Amino acid sequence: MWELDRTSAKPLYKQIADELEQKIAYGEFPAGSVLPSERKLADQLGVNRSTVVLAYSELRSLGILESRPGSGTRVSVTKWGVTPKHTPNWHRYAEGGSFLPSPPFLRRIREALELDPSMIDFAGGELAAELSPLEELHAIMSEKWPVMYLGYDNPQGYEPLRDTLVSFLREYRGIHTAASSILITSGSQQSLYLITQCLLSPGDAVAIEDPSYCYSLPMFQSAGLRLFRLPVDEQGIHPDDIYELYHKHRIKMIFLNPNFQNPTGALLSPERRERLLHIAGELGLPIVEDDPFSMTAYDGKPAPSLKSADRAGSVLYIGSFSKMAASGLRVGWMVAPHSIVKRLSDARQQMDFGLSVVPQQVAAQFLNSRYFLPHIDRLRSRLRHKRNLTIAALERELPGMIRWRHPEGGLHLWCTIAPEVNDGKLLEACIQRGMVFVPGSVYGSASGHVRFTYGRANTEDIPEGISRFAAALRSILN
Amino acid sequence: MWELDRTSAKPLYKQIADELEQKIAYGEFPAGSVLPSERKLADQLGVNRSTVVLAYSELRSLGILESRPGSGTRVSVTKWGVTPKHTPNWHRYAEGGSFLPSPPFLRRIREALELDPSMIDFAGGELAAELSPLEELHAIMSEKWPVMYLGYDNPQGYEPLRDTLVSFLREYRGIHTAASSILITSGSQQSLYLITQCLLSPGDAVAIEDPSYCYSLPMFQSAGLRLFRLPVDEQGIHPDDIYELYHKHRIKMIFLNPNFQNPTGALLSPERRERLLHIAGELGLPIVEDDPFSMTAYDGKPAPSLKSADRAGSVLYIGSFSKMAASGLRVGWMVAPHSIVKRLSDARQQMDFGLSVVPQQVAAQFLNSRYFLPHIDRLRSRLRHKRNLTIAALERELPGMIRWRHPEGGLHLWCTIAPEVNDGKLLEACIQRGMVFVPGSVYGSASGHVRFTYGRANTEDIPEGISRFAAALRSILN
Ligand SMILES: Cc1ncc(COP(=O)(O)O)c(C=O)c1O
Ligand SMILES: Cc1ncc(COP(=O)(O)O)c(C=O)c1O
Repeated sequence: MWELDRTSAKPLYKQIADELEQKIAYGEFPAGSVLPSERKLADQLGVNRSTVVLAYSELRSLGILESRPGSGTRVSVTKWGVTPKHTPNWHRYAEGGSFLPSPPFLRRIREALELDPSMIDFAGGELAAELSPLEELHAIMSEKWPVMYLGYDNPQGYEPLRDTLVSFLREYRGIHTAASSILITSGSQQSLYLITQCLLSPGDAVAIEDPSYCYSLPMFQSAGLRLFRLPVDEQGIHPDDIYELYHKHRIKMIFLNPNFQNPTGALLSPERRERLLHIAGELGLPIVEDDPFSMTAYDGKPAPSLKSADRAGSVLYIGSFSKMAASGLRVGWMVAPHSIVKRLSDARQQMDFGLSVVPQQVAAQFLNSRYFLPHIDRLRSRLRHKRNLTIAALERELPGMIRWRHPEGGLHLWCTIAPEVNDGKLLEACIQRGMVFVPGSVYGSASGHVRFTYGRANTEDIPEGISRFAAALRSILN
Repeated sequence: MWELDRTSAKPLYKQIADELEQKIAYGEFPAGSVLPSERKLADQLGVNRSTVVLAYSELRSLGILESRPGSGTRVSVTKWGVTPKHTPNWHRYAEGGSFLPSPPFLRRIREALELDPSMIDFAGGELAAELSPLEELHAIMSEKWPVMYLGYDNPQGYEPLRDTLVSFLREYRGIHTAASSILITSGSQQSLYLITQCLLSPGDAVAIEDPSYCYSLPMFQSAGLRLFRLPVDEQGIHPDDIYELYHKHRIKMIFLNPNFQNPTGALLSPERRERLLHIAGELGLPIVEDDPFSMTAYDGKPAPSLKSADRAGSVLYIGSFSKMAASGLRVGWMVAPHSIVKRLSDARQQMDFGLSVVPQQVAAQFLNSRYFLPHIDRLRSRLRHKRNLTIAALERELPGMIRWRHPEGGLHLWCTIAPEVNDGKLLEACIQRGMVFVPGSVYGSASGHVRFTYGRANTEDIPEGISRFAAALRSILN
């Protein structure tokens, strides 16, 4: 919100009223739009509720605002009915374009976390502060950096980072590639965006896992893609399911997250990997291998990437700094045939002129540093510990009422609730009790599935968080 | 490219042949694709041309490559004719989606700069290293930073940066806004991308300046917009031209760069600003005010922003760190009604999960630092000096042959060549002589216009660069 001047002679309520009037005149709150409740605005501005009550009533007396019981305070349509022809109809513009908003559950969760920072967070798909190498990244950022030119950079990404990734990918993911085949992106998210926007056309059919992180991304629908499902069991998808989707729907691409899949934690078995590559080769079908979690393998032995066994050149490989170090750095990468890299970096040039070089320098330094391996070791054992704590709490709190898949890496625990429950009600009951999780329906599953991201919750909050969840579940079952 | 192992017992030519064979097998060079010329690959790998000749001939003898005189070396279609059904048809995928590649002249310029780093650059639309506050940014980056959590951040942007911008915009651009109405973007480029993708629909008509930076952006065509022209003279566009475009084509939005316009350097006059806002208000038409250059005003007195006089709430304001400090940081901002900010940040969430927080911290620190004002003063006087040098060189080298607009801010000099010339030929002749500029046709103008970005060229190279340009021009006129 804006700042109030507490030293001014102008009373606070008057400052608020004037500021609101100006925002309304500027079109920031168009005619008919709802203002924040008195309590909420008072909280945001750090004033007494009575001060806001006074400001609103001042504006009501001027005919600028109108309140009706039950429907809050709105910008008057009659008073400002003279201006709509002046102010662009911003609401109409906001409905243009083809971008869908985020799924309502995800917005609800974000909102709950913003309102109450003490909420125990089993929802955010990222590392808790205690797992992120913050001290190490901080040490790297505070190093004496060489002074270098900060101009528009190669749209494919900062070259020293791409060189670093050539070694990283060879050493840890068995991928032999060249810097010219790597595109640096703003996390895996931008890789997925570029692929869906630039390599596919509206109406194209694609296969995704069921359940899948991709269902939580309106990106796929925004791109006009038709989605078909490949059910995931403990060992991942069944490759032979691909034939049917191919023949029935002419799918053009397969999106997979084969290592510690989000949300199920499943690890695609070696036999299925081989069969999958065989089928993709036979059908000439590209596979997008989204691989953010493999480095977290709790036993210290990440399964080889699909790409490393990709003799037919079917695989576009996507990696990210997010789940192994820090998502806020926004550094991801894609390995693809050079023609694809060129195409995507051309398109990307139009979107944002490439990524800032600073986080790319930090990521490159970190991957090359003596901090990297000890951090990964620590990350693995701490994640395993959190998984164990979560499972122990579930066994204690909800014996016989909930089942889960046992993940050997990644951040997520995928659960099925035995009694019938309504996702939305359960989430609301949990929010009331101060914890959030992600309902399975966000990933395309039926009601009654739950994703607990133990990687996000603080270790000491895990037992309490699960206990709140259990209380919420019991409250709606009664 | 890849690395050769010069200590290995395996001869270099064999290493090259093996690596190429693998890349071909992996689909990185599909059947029928053209390989780099022997000379080019030799340059890239830092080996003798004869080594590459040997590698290619090895692969030819295996039937993997085929060469035909005049059409270079290709991956054999006959040999690999057995595999096309295995490797996805990447070329076809690369043609999918709706993103057009960059205009050919811009790609040609980029290529020329990559091949010859000693090229004198009057083309890049950004600050030369000597103008960018590199030491200062470096000092800020090397400061002791507080250790903070680096998780997914607010998709609207890092809050301390938005707070900083509230003061910056008030103080320097006369804009009174709140952090909740600011969206941080990856430069102005991403602001323009979000607006064209999310607030407009394919087929919508919009007005842009003629000539205009926007013509150089395939983004507008990729979004399926129909573009209509508002001619720019020394004082900017003629606002009354808007009526005709509105009634004839139902334009939905106006894109303007009113301060030191790219490419003409024009500054919209105060009378026209007032008239423009009146007309926009009357028609309920939104204006996008793209304002990257205003802080460079050579007299130290930037004209007030359009937004500052926007009583009807017609203006979406876009600013950027690029042209006043460093484009490689990729930090820009937009001021818009809250409903628009929400909509765009939702969409942006799908594209890249927001900007890295690190460059946002650096930008915020810099704007708040004691470095900022002295830097801006220095920038202004140095840019003015460069403008004077460029004009003096043109007067000396090409008397009577070239006219220009006299810019009082910004980075660009817009020229008209008196004799008839062909843009493409002139550019090639300049590249041969070691200098690049941007042909006016990139901005939608007829042949015979030239943009010299004196802000990009190094001061000491300016006279030599213009002298090369003059020699190139003379060579094609003869
Ligand atoms: C499977 C998967 N892919 C991609 C992403 C995007 O992450 P980022 O863009 O931070 O790399 C996520 C984040 O949750 C994910 O779980
Ligand atoms: C008028 C104008 N707008 C926007 C941009 C984009 O710049 P950035 O994304 O670096 O802010 C440029 C760059 O040349 C420009 O000249």
